[in-house]
Amino acid sequence: MPIGTGATGTRMESDSMGQIEVPAEHYWGAQTQRSLIHFSIGDDHMPKAVYHAYGYVKKAAALVNQSAGRLDAQRGAAIIQAADEVITGHLDSEFPLYVWQTGSGTQSNMNVNEVIGNRASQLLGGTLGTKHPVHPNDHVNMGQSSNDTFPTAMHIATVLEVTGRLLPHVDRLAQTIHDKAVQWVDVVKIGRTHLQDATPLTVGQEWSGWATQLREARARLADALHAIYQVAAGGTAVGTGLNAPDGFGEQIAAQVADLTRQPFTTAPNKFAAQGSLDAIVAVSAGLRGLAVALMKVANDMRWLASGPRAGLHELTLPANEPGSSIMPGKVNPTQQEAMVMVCLQVIGEDSIVAAAGAQGNFELNAMRPIIINNVLHSARILGDACEKLRRYSVDGTELDRAKVDDYVGRSLMLVTALSPTIGYDKASAIAHKADDDGVTLREAALALGVVAAEFDRVIDPAAMVGHPRRDLGLDQPNENDP
Amino acid sequence: MPIGTGATGTRMESDSMGQIEVPAEHYWGAQTQRSLIHFSIGDDHMPKAVYHAYGYVKKAAALVNQSAGRLDAQRGAAIIQAADEVITGHLDSEFPLYVWQTGSGTQSNMNVNEVIGNRASQLLGGTLGTKHPVHPNDHVNMGQSSNDTFPTAMHIATVLEVTGRLLPHVDRLAQTIHDKAVQWVDVVKIGRTHLQDATPLTVGQEWSGWATQLREARARLADALHAIYQVAAGGTAVGTGLNAPDGFGEQIAAQVADLTRQPFTTAPNKFAAQGSLDAIVAVSAGLRGLAVALMKVANDMRWLASGPRAGLHELTLPANEPGSSIMPGKVNPTQQEAMVMVCLQVIGEDSIVAAAGAQGNFELNAMRPIIINNVLHSARILGDACEKLRRYSVDGTELDRAKVDDYVGRSLMLVTALSPTIGYDKASAIAHKADDDGVTLREAALALGVVAAEFDRVIDPAAMVGHPRRDLGLDQPNENDP
Amino acid sequence: MPIGTGATGTRMESDSMGQIEVPAEHYWGAQTQRSLIHFSIGDDHMPKAVYHAYGYVKKAAALVNQSAGRLDAQRGAAIIQAADEVITGHLDSEFPLYVWQTGSGTQSNMNVNEVIGNRASQLLGGTLGTKHPVHPNDHVNMGQSSNDTFPTAMHIATVLEVTGRLLPHVDRLAQTIHDKAVQWVDVVKIGRTHLQDATPLTVGQEWSGWATQLREARARLADALHAIYQVAAGGTAVGTGLNAPDGFGEQIAAQVADLTRQPFTTAPNKFAAQGSLDAIVAVSAGLRGLAVALMKVANDMRWLASGPRAGLHELTLPANEPGSSIMPGKVNPTQQEAMVMVCLQVIGEDSIVAAAGAQGNFELNAMRPIIINNVLHSARILGDACEKLRRYSVDGTELDRAKVDDYVGRSLMLVTALSPTIGYDKASAIAHKADDDGVTLREAALALGVVAAEFDRVIDPAAMVGHPRRDLGLDQPNENDP
Amino acid sequence: MPIGTGATGTRMESDSMGQIEVPAEHYWGAQTQRSLIHFSIGDDHMPKAVYHAYGYVKKAAALVNQSAGRLDAQRGAAIIQAADEVITGHLDSEFPLYVWQTGSGTQSNMNVNEVIGNRASQLLGGTLGTKHPVHPNDHVNMGQSSNDTFPTAMHIATVLEVTGRLLPHVDRLAQTIHDKAVQWVDVVKIGRTHLQDATPLTVGQEWSGWATQLREARARLADALHAIYQVAAGGTAVGTGLNAPDGFGEQIAAQVADLTRQPFTTAPNKFAAQGSLDAIVAVSAGLRGLAVALMKVANDMRWLASGPRAGLHELTLPANEPGSSIMPGKVNPTQQEAMVMVCLQVIGEDSIVAAAGAQGNFELNAMRPIIINNVLHSARILGDACEKLRRYSVDGTELDRAKVDDYVGRSLMLVTALSPTIGYDKASAIAHKADDDGVTLREAALALGVVAAEFDRVIDPAAMVGHPRRDLGLDQPNENDP
Repeated sequence: MPIGTGATGTRMESDSMGQIEVPAEHYWGAQTQRSLIHFSIGDDHMPKAVYHAYGYVKKAAALVNQSAGRLDAQRGAAIIQAADEVITGHLDSEFPLYVWQTGSGTQSNMNVNEVIGNRASQLLGGTLGTKHPVHPNDHVNMGQSSNDTFPTAMHIATVLEVTGRLLPHVDRLAQTIHDKAVQWVDVVKIGRTHLQDATPLTVGQEWSGWATQLREARARLADALHAIYQVAAGGTAVGTGLNAPDGFGEQIAAQVADLTRQPFTTAPNKFAAQGSLDAIVAVSAGLRGLAVALMKVANDMRWLASGPRAGLHELTLPANEPGSSIMPGKVNPTQQEAMVMVCLQVIGEDSIVAAAGAQGNFELNAMRPIIINNVLHSARILGDACEKLRRYSVDGTELDRAKVDDYVGRSLMLVTALSPTIGYDKASAIAHKADDDGVTLREAALALGVVAAEFDRVIDPAAMVGHPRRDLGLDQPNENDP
Repeated sequence: MPIGTGATGTRMESDSMGQIEVPAEHYWGAQTQRSLIHFSIGDDHMPKAVYHAYGYVKKAAALVNQSAGRLDAQRGAAIIQAADEVITGHLDSEFPLYVWQTGSGTQSNMNVNEVIGNRASQLLGGTLGTKHPVHPNDHVNMGQSSNDTFPTAMHIATVLEVTGRLLPHVDRLAQTIHDKAVQWVDVVKIGRTHLQDATPLTVGQEWSGWATQLREARARLADALHAIYQVAAGGTAVGTGLNAPDGFGEQIAAQVADLTRQPFTTAPNKFAAQGSLDAIVAVSAGLRGLAVALMKVANDMRWLASGPRAGLHELTLPANEPGSSIMPGKVNPTQQEAMVMVCLQVIGEDSIVAAAGAQGNFELNAMRPIIINNVLHSARILGDACEKLRRYSVDGTELDRAKVDDYVGRSLMLVTALSPTIGYDKASAIAHKADDDGVTLREAALALGVVAAEFDRVIDPAAMVGHPRRDLGLDQPNENDP
Repeated sequence: MPIGTGATGTRMESDSMGQIEVPAEHYWGAQTQRSLIHFSIGDDHMPKAVYHAYGYVKKAAALVNQSAGRLDAQRGAAIIQAADEVITGHLDSEFPLYVWQTGSGTQSNMNVNEVIGNRASQLLGGTLGTKHPVHPNDHVNMGQSSNDTFPTAMHIATVLEVTGRLLPHVDRLAQTIHDKAVQWVDVVKIGRTHLQDATPLTVGQEWSGWATQLREARARLADALHAIYQVAAGGTAVGTGLNAPDGFGEQIAAQVADLTRQPFTTAPNKFAAQGSLDAIVAVSAGLRGLAVALMKVANDMRWLASGPRAGLHELTLPANEPGSSIMPGKVNPTQQEAMVMVCLQVIGEDSIVAAAGAQGNFELNAMRPIIINNVLHSARILGDACEKLRRYSVDGTELDRAKVDDYVGRSLMLVTALSPTIGYDKASAIAHKADDDGVTLREAALALGVVAAEFDRVIDPAAMVGHPRRDLGLDQPNENDP
Repeated sequence: MPIGTGATGTRMESDSMGQIEVPAEHYWGAQTQRSLIHFSIGDDHMPKAVYHAYGYVKKAAALVNQSAGRLDAQRGAAIIQAADEVITGHLDSEFPLYVWQTGSGTQSNMNVNEVIGNRASQLLGGTLGTKHPVHPNDHVNMGQSSNDTFPTAMHIATVLEVTGRLLPHVDRLAQTIHDKAVQWVDVVKIGRTHLQDATPLTVGQEWSGWATQLREARARLADALHAIYQVAAGGTAVGTGLNAPDGFGEQIAAQVADLTRQPFTTAPNKFAAQGSLDAIVAVSAGLRGLAVALMKVANDMRWLASGPRAGLHELTLPANEPGSSIMPGKVNPTQQEAMVMVCLQVIGEDSIVAAAGAQGNFELNAMRPIIINNVLHSARILGDACEKLRRYSVDGTELDRAKVDDYVGRSLMLVTALSPTIGYDKASAIAHKADDDGVTLREAALALGVVAAEFDRVIDPAAMVGHPRRDLGLDQPNENDP
């Protein structure tokens, strides 16, 4: 039976508050309708990913309840079919609620219960709005509470978004950066600390630092996911499991794990799992860690590309679009700017998540919608921004070799290599003299008594960069290696 | 001529990067199309309010340019008509870009220029995509840069959202709270400090504190708006006004003021106005100030309504919807929870705005899209949440007089009134004795030697609340007044 | 009688919890001692400025109580003398408590009451620890509660720190920056937007932007102070003024105003003034506003000074100290780095203040110590950092004219000036050609058909900067003016 | 030779900037003195723990250099002795610098180099200020840069603070909470969700949730430490290891590991280790995670203790000190308030750390002092607050059994247990009727047709709490178990 009520106008639905009209073309019931009216705040809707995840919870519960005989086969099958339609997004239009609603997510849970209930009733030949033969609470929500299932759906949705989308995008970006590092492993460039000229390194080494930052941040995020593989389902209202049979939590978790092919297990202490959202706060910190790393990388890229004639301009970024409505021919590091903004947003949203995570009271942290909305949003924009940055900027970035070489040739900080031989104080005097007199380091060194041959032997930028190939894990020995 | 290109399929548009296909049913041009491709990050779109505000900028510029003879009457009229269609939202579907784009907002400015350009060309019988007779840069953007007009549009959009929507919602909420304060001006209740029982006050006094918090926060926000009445238009690319005629900034500001009936003026220093976003960061702090106050008020309300049998329950909030999918008959303070979440979101978004505001470099703060998106979002959800809280909760809140009276009768902190007579130390001993022995304050006082008549004279809760009517600015003298 | 107990070892003090030994050389009493034991958390001590401010409160209360006959002349005089010793810092060693204590600040209030009580008793010939003839609660705290006086002291301390120290430092820094702007008003330099080369402006214009940012942020902070000139004193325990005579709040505020020569008044609604800390949260936002502006300015300075040979290096900052332990002769923008860190700290501490400001409950916001500690800390480090930046860096900053001129000469964005004549699209083609071919703008323009004379007439950087002298408010007409 | 210069007045010291007078009683040299003058900002001093950690670095380097023959035995021994004096805190008075200094920490590194250099020179009979026989750069800093050693010292200091002090305090608090959970494992109480009455659980279950939160947060922090066991030493100026011999990084890490008995290793990519501070940002997130959990626990405790007569008052907290200067006999949850403030501070300082962590540029993140200062501060106050909370509040907390029992008896949410039998809708009607009519649940149920015997069988709070002993991991089967 295809999805659709085949009706127009309105239909009566009811709950413990009484009757209320709902649009007849929709499956949702009374509680969804009340929430729609009472909470139309801004334009922030509970992410669809939460409902898709909830579909897994409802399907798992139906499978467990059916298998234990608490739910008859017919109702069970209908609920499972409807849940599958939720999972695949075919019922997305039935989930209209706002983020800013009850803090437990009860209204979104009831939205799912009502939609699955009505759809399943329809599948079984029942009439919408009668709660018969499938009742949203007694059947779809059997053995469940919003208090245990909403955080379960939060965990599922987050795992699927992060592993399915964000991490692959990060991996590809890190790989592309690493590939560039390999390409430029031996190109010597000037280092910069405090924004000031420092001793040289290779372009490959610099890029390897970026790749490492991303990979380490990615690994920390993946570690943080472990905590949210534990789910609260089975704790029901306050963590005791009232109205759920013994072992229900373990069984639900196992079913969800099976359905999603992700290693979900039941949370060992349901009071912590429902009274706090600490585990997902930790995942948010992992997202922030990525943002902190990406912001540094994006900033480095745009500064190194600054110019073209009055900036550093060691890098040439792809020109994707005109940069100015008034300055003809201007090209800007727009992908990097977008990434910096995305990172600031993610860092800020993480602070919202932490603040909300600290606001739990007793047996419930009633700040769930704000947390899942920010976490999923952060994961999404971070992943997309990685993909865009890679595809439209990093991939096509080129070196301005003339600039890179020129900076190395004129740097004063090469004097550092003389320090072990002539001492820090004398080396320092040479650098200051070169700067004050506007001469080359060689000229200043010779003027202060360094022998030319000694200078030329020691001041070899290519010999000052250590072991770039080794740093990048390449097999071939570096030509700079002794 | 009605809005609509009457075409399907694609059309060629061009910019300095070359040609590109755009959907033929849309008015946008090459730069919009490039941005759509390069910046499809998440689902965050530049708020329509920014485009509506930009419509005012473009119209104002056309009026000024036309009047000065720089723009011929025909082109001017067509641009003005198209700008009006932007202002009124009739061209909303033509503005598809994402928040995460170039940090200057250039792509959104060009989106406006392209749409107005094509629409105006169409009005004048031209062919879309030819930039003739109306060119997006040369005519629609005449005398302008994104660098000066985008922050101008940010300011206009913020002023219109805050004054048109947020402030009225806050005012109505504050008024409703004040009305309740007046209604309950003389109802004596127990005060609480550190969550512990304290000396009494009236319900009206407590609510007057909430109303005052909202009104003072509202006043501070209104003050902060003054800074963003100053607009950057006229500074063009870097603040010098290159390619704009002398006086252009003043004229644009005057036109915008006239069109919006808001007191916009030109920013006295364009380098600060374009290199920083400090003024709008201050407005964001004003939004945060409201959130800080509202969070306290919402929390007070939900704690005072806690129960019904194992909480404070001085207040009975309206029951708008069932509170639990598992616990029948449960009613929760959902409007207050939604408000608390909204406040946390606004506080967090303000910190994003500040972080972004600090990231300017040289002649541009390239963090504009993130700032305007967060500011407008915060203003919107704060306003809507105020309206919902008022309508669906505060308005129907009732006192549980039995509870209120009971707490006053049993409080130990009434002993404070004895302190001036018998001294702090002895009064303290009485309170401790009552608590330790589980007896009434009167019993403890008499046991420790206070004369009954003296006790009864001094320990009169209604005489301990000062001047509630005076505190609320009511005309009638308080019955408690001496 | 000189300050000092003349005793060693310990002395017995008592409160409602019983007796406790205190160090005999100190004036503090039982409650201070208990707090010292129970709250030795980290090394954060309540700022001395809070106690100095509290001295004003206690002196004002004694004056008012004495004048009304509630406090006899002898006790009054002794309390006033002791309060003066608190105000001037002579009793600083008597205030050892930690920031992390009771959220109302009661323990610090009692510390003040105990110290003044014992010192006043000593002055009147009494014995320390007897609370006679001057009792800490009955006399020193007469008509007061911590709940109204601690926020009063917070406001006084903040006003004195901000007006006495921070604002003057900001003013001097802004003036120095303005002076540099005047000095370099006509030096044409390349502008930068998105970090990329843009159209020119003068160094004076750029610096005028910085000065304007600071002055506007300073003005907003000064505005925010208005809210904290209103003080809670008079509200006592919960805002009703229990145990304080009618008019006490007005009288205290007037006395404090007189003593501090600052326009303090009584808060019109004491329930808001004690239940919230909204007013000081707004002051914190003002501090943040300064930090946001200063961070931009400091970053601009250090980037413009980057190099000396592989950076922008338009500015030469004073070399105050060696920059590296390993790289001889290195000089870094350390004052700017310190300022950036200070700004990040202030921005973060402001977010702490906001979070704490939102945590009020009922008649008290019990987050006062954390708020005053962060606000005073932020004000202090911001002021000191401004003074150091000015004295040790901005004052001695020089232009690298060769660099500045060279960038202007080679810029491609000068093409913008051609745009009104030849159109945006053709101008764009010229810029791209110059960039692609590595030629000058003039060469590219001529190759694309621009007449040399026309190019030379239009492309005059000095004519592209508008009216720098007017922008700086200088009397003389700009030589660039038409 | 005892510590002490035996001199007064001043002594000349010199660096590449020239000569400068330093106080003769101190060991520090010219660069320390310059920093003292240029950076006296506020009263924030670089934590001593950083210097103690630096002592390990300098000792390790001397051991490695000596063993390799780069440093002669005599100089090596003297440096090692001086480093030991640094490690043990005997030279603490020699480290006066401020937090707000150069962003690399170079000035603190030079402070260490100068102090060890002078002290070692003194030990070898040299004259202070001559840099002979031990030179601060050439010998003490041999093979090192601030850029690699300062983050190494940051990591060491953080590991020692967290493992040596914070984690043990957290463990003891969690254990005490667990012990209380065990004590009250079978005491049935009313649950609360959304602050509203919910189904019952036992006190032991509620406290087990708190203990679990702390233990999981503690485990996450311990995990985060792994990242900072990797140290940058060996990378020198920009990560290439210039002027350090091959293998130096590995050798230093091994020595530090040996000296501190902590598993330090060398960072595999020095460019990431010096260009970013991502690893310590992750540790900061771990601290925040603890704060988020502790804030919830502390808030629960103070709300459950609210009253004594107009609050929830299920718990009686120890009365450690008088709670009010005006209300005699008042007792407040001050340890919990202090903890909440500490948590807010830690959460805020973590956001500072993240913001600073994102501000790296090229080969250096020059935001090190702000990060280490906030991280060490957060760890310290969090640890101390845990210890105080445990000792002065949790340890002595008692149940108010009368209140606890009373709430259970009157709760309406027990109706939930009827739901599986009579359905959600009917159960809901019963709860509403009881609430509306102010009758007991039993009365309402019977009035609506539930059979008394059935009611009494199902509505048994003790049977509604699941398996509290199992939840706590106790061996004995729960009496509630079937």
